[in-house]
Amino acid sequence: MRRSGRHKYPLIAETIAIGSELLIGGRTDGNSLIIAEQLGRLGIEVRFKSIVGDDQADIRAVLKTAVGRAGVIIMTGGLGPTVDDCTREAIASATGKRLAVRKEAFEAMKARLAEWSRTPNSGQRRQALIPSGATVLKNPVGSAPGFWLRWKRALVISLPGVPREMEAMVNDSVVALLRSELQLARQGQLRPITRLVFHTFGLPEADVDAKLKGLIKNHAPIDLGLLASPMGVLVSLTTKPRRPITGDLLQGLSNDVRSRLGDWLFAEGPDSMEEVVGRSLATQNLTVAVAESCTGGLIGHRLTQVPGSSAYVDRGVICYSNRAKSELLGVPSELIEQHGAVSAEVAAAMARGMRERSGVSVALSVTGIAGPGGGTATKPVGLVYVALNAENGASLTKEYRFHGDRTVIKQRSSQAALDLLRRWLQKQAAGR
Amino acid sequence: MRRSGRHKYPLIAETIAIGSELLIGGRTDGNSLIIAEQLGRLGIEVRFKSIVGDDQADIRAVLKTAVGRAGVIIMTGGLGPTVDDCTREAIASATGKRLAVRKEAFEAMKARLAEWSRTPNSGQRRQALIPSGATVLKNPVGSAPGFWLRWKRALVISLPGVPREMEAMVNDSVVALLRSELQLARQGQLRPITRLVFHTFGLPEADVDAKLKGLIKNHAPIDLGLLASPMGVLVSLTTKPRRPITGDLLQGLSNDVRSRLGDWLFAEGPDSMEEVVGRSLATQNLTVAVAESCTGGLIGHRLTQVPGSSAYVDRGVICYSNRAKSELLGVPSELIEQHGAVSAEVAAAMARGMRERSGVSVALSVTGIAGPGGGTATKPVGLVYVALNAENGASLTKEYRFHGDRTVIKQRSSQAALDLLRRWLQKQAAGR
Repeated sequence: MRRSGRHKYPLIAETIAIGSELLIGGRTDGNSLIIAEQLGRLGIEVRFKSIVGDDQADIRAVLKTAVGRAGVIIMTGGLGPTVDDCTREAIASATGKRLAVRKEAFEAMKARLAEWSRTPNSGQRRQALIPSGATVLKNPVGSAPGFWLRWKRALVISLPGVPREMEAMVNDSVVALLRSELQLARQGQLRPITRLVFHTFGLPEADVDAKLKGLIKNHAPIDLGLLASPMGVLVSLTTKPRRPITGDLLQGLSNDVRSRLGDWLFAEGPDSMEEVVGRSLATQNLTVAVAESCTGGLIGHRLTQVPGSSAYVDRGVICYSNRAKSELLGVPSELIEQHGAVSAEVAAAMARGMRERSGVSVALSVTGIAGPGGGTATKPVGLVYVALNAENGASLTKEYRFHGDRTVIKQRSSQAALDLLRRWLQKQAAGR
Repeated sequence: MRRSGRHKYPLIAETIAIGSELLIGGRTDGNSLIIAEQLGRLGIEVRFKSIVGDDQADIRAVLKTAVGRAGVIIMTGGLGPTVDDCTREAIASATGKRLAVRKEAFEAMKARLAEWSRTPNSGQRRQALIPSGATVLKNPVGSAPGFWLRWKRALVISLPGVPREMEAMVNDSVVALLRSELQLARQGQLRPITRLVFHTFGLPEADVDAKLKGLIKNHAPIDLGLLASPMGVLVSLTTKPRRPITGDLLQGLSNDVRSRLGDWLFAEGPDSMEEVVGRSLATQNLTVAVAESCTGGLIGHRLTQVPGSSAYVDRGVICYSNRAKSELLGVPSELIEQHGAVSAEVAAAMARGMRERSGVSVALSVTGIAGPGGGTATKPVGLVYVALNAENGASLTKEYRFHGDRTVIKQRSSQAALDLLRRWLQKQAAGR
């Protein structure tokens, strides 16, 4: 075997996701996002992503294209025990290697299956087939091993498609493999691709864009990105690969982004609104309850996605019927008759009733028209009221007019309610 | 311009999704799934999918590879008004065409913006740049037009990346364009790719696999697929393109799948559990209420995702604290002390309390340990009880031991509760 490090691999990466279910089966390839992030940290840019079915000839074609433009090729999927799975065969045939059962791979698989009180069947035996000259990559959480080999100017790495297994193998062995094979330490010009993200809610994309105008000078080694979703507009600063950059520049730009976005900015990095709100509730030792009409439980669901949320989430009620609003929250039926169930008055009464009956520190409520039916000329689909009621006497109400389908309106409504809570929590914390 | 239909396009399609946010930005390409489904109906198979950043040279490279293997190339994204967006330039440069503002495209955009009381700015003006010889594709819902042209042996179609706009244009004009340009009517050998899906819940993938063993004979023109997710195992029958198939064969196989899966099968096609349950509640004129502990509102959220669900969803309570279980549902605190909040007894009491207090036809409840904390040796993370209580006296409880992280356990728990309701509703309907 040739000594490692002799090659000059182009520091461009390509991912190849293999699986017919990714073509028409309603499943998207999320593995490549995880790979791109890990490679970015090493300073290797994923420039191309390919998706192909479980078809030997097509996999070969895609691999041949990849090797012409990328120095790091990471393939996921097609290593399973069924006859469909033909990534091993395709790689062997494209690179002109022989496939044979590799003893170390077979023994590791037998040991793993033994833990589960099983023995390898013929399909699983196929999973120990490894191209000649390739090195086995252990699978720390599943039975299918991966492998890697050198081909032309590229490192070709083949991993299982199960996200949990793929991710474990990237962390366990692929990162170290790339570091040593590509001699990343010696590549002075190589810098990690840093991506900082800032989450805003409440401003249209055009307004966020206007606020950030002129932030990045022409030819700066940093890209500014804007991405709108029902949860708000995400702003990103991404360093360009192979371009020298000082930490000060990124730090300065981040501070500039923060001050330009002001309190529209609700989180940075991987944080979500519910995590930010949850942390603030926990720190301030406060409890919360939610009264949901049009969101139907989504706010409760989101708050309780956060591990440890039982420390501050006390309860919630979903009051889809008017009777439920009266019975569970004490909203007077006359108030509903007078103003309608979707009104600032009813939202405020829901929040007050929720807080008073539960005894929590702060209660949130939402009432609105999620559509597609139920809208009128004066109260159209998308009209939503959120309200907050706190033990310190605070009572806030906000009106929104959202666009989008039922799912989008529910998402935006839940985000609006949580944002109201976030802003209130922020003031509380500042006032202490 | 050449007459259409002279060319013989290979009936293989490739999608190219353009956007740097698809490389590292945490966003996956869902557009290609919608395109693959529509093309499948026409009998055109999407065999390759590519994803590339907003980089002219890279887009050109990907397009050149695609034209070597596909006769239908559908590109999405990179048609926006910002300087990043360079799909127009890349296509023009790859195909050797000139870019110029196309009057009809500009006028249509002006008219659309006028509806929104705006006038085109310089960025939007760029959106009317169309390669010479290309035909404009109207955007019925947004401002960016698309276009198509012939290049070598391929039809190259460029659409905006916003899913709503992309989908509208595929339905409005791309399908008709493909029919006429590819003369699909004359292509006798061409058959729609039919994909039938069957949703199961409650059986491990290996057991579903065992039930379907021998269903598909070797060399049959139909692929059987299995796809596991927290919501259950999805079974698919997909016809192979370019292979003659009789409707009877697919019909017979579908019936066979149904009888083999029995009542583990909860839905077919695009239906979700909440739609199946909702339809059954509506048809039987029943109302439902939910009492959620570990799911935290997810069941309510899912039930109310269905348009028109206000007809049968009355209310829900999220009782994260023991006090909430007692106050909102009348669960005796002694019962909680004796058996623990996560127990069959408490689940049953929650469902009973929910139904009695709300007066609905049927109530569901869930209590469990979603983790990562809170587990013990006897009550580990993943232990979940679901219960149902109905006005006809039915009282059902079921224990589950799920694996996975907090999100997965919440998802599986919500699915288990809805499945309990589905099975009960099915019996009710049969007994009428």
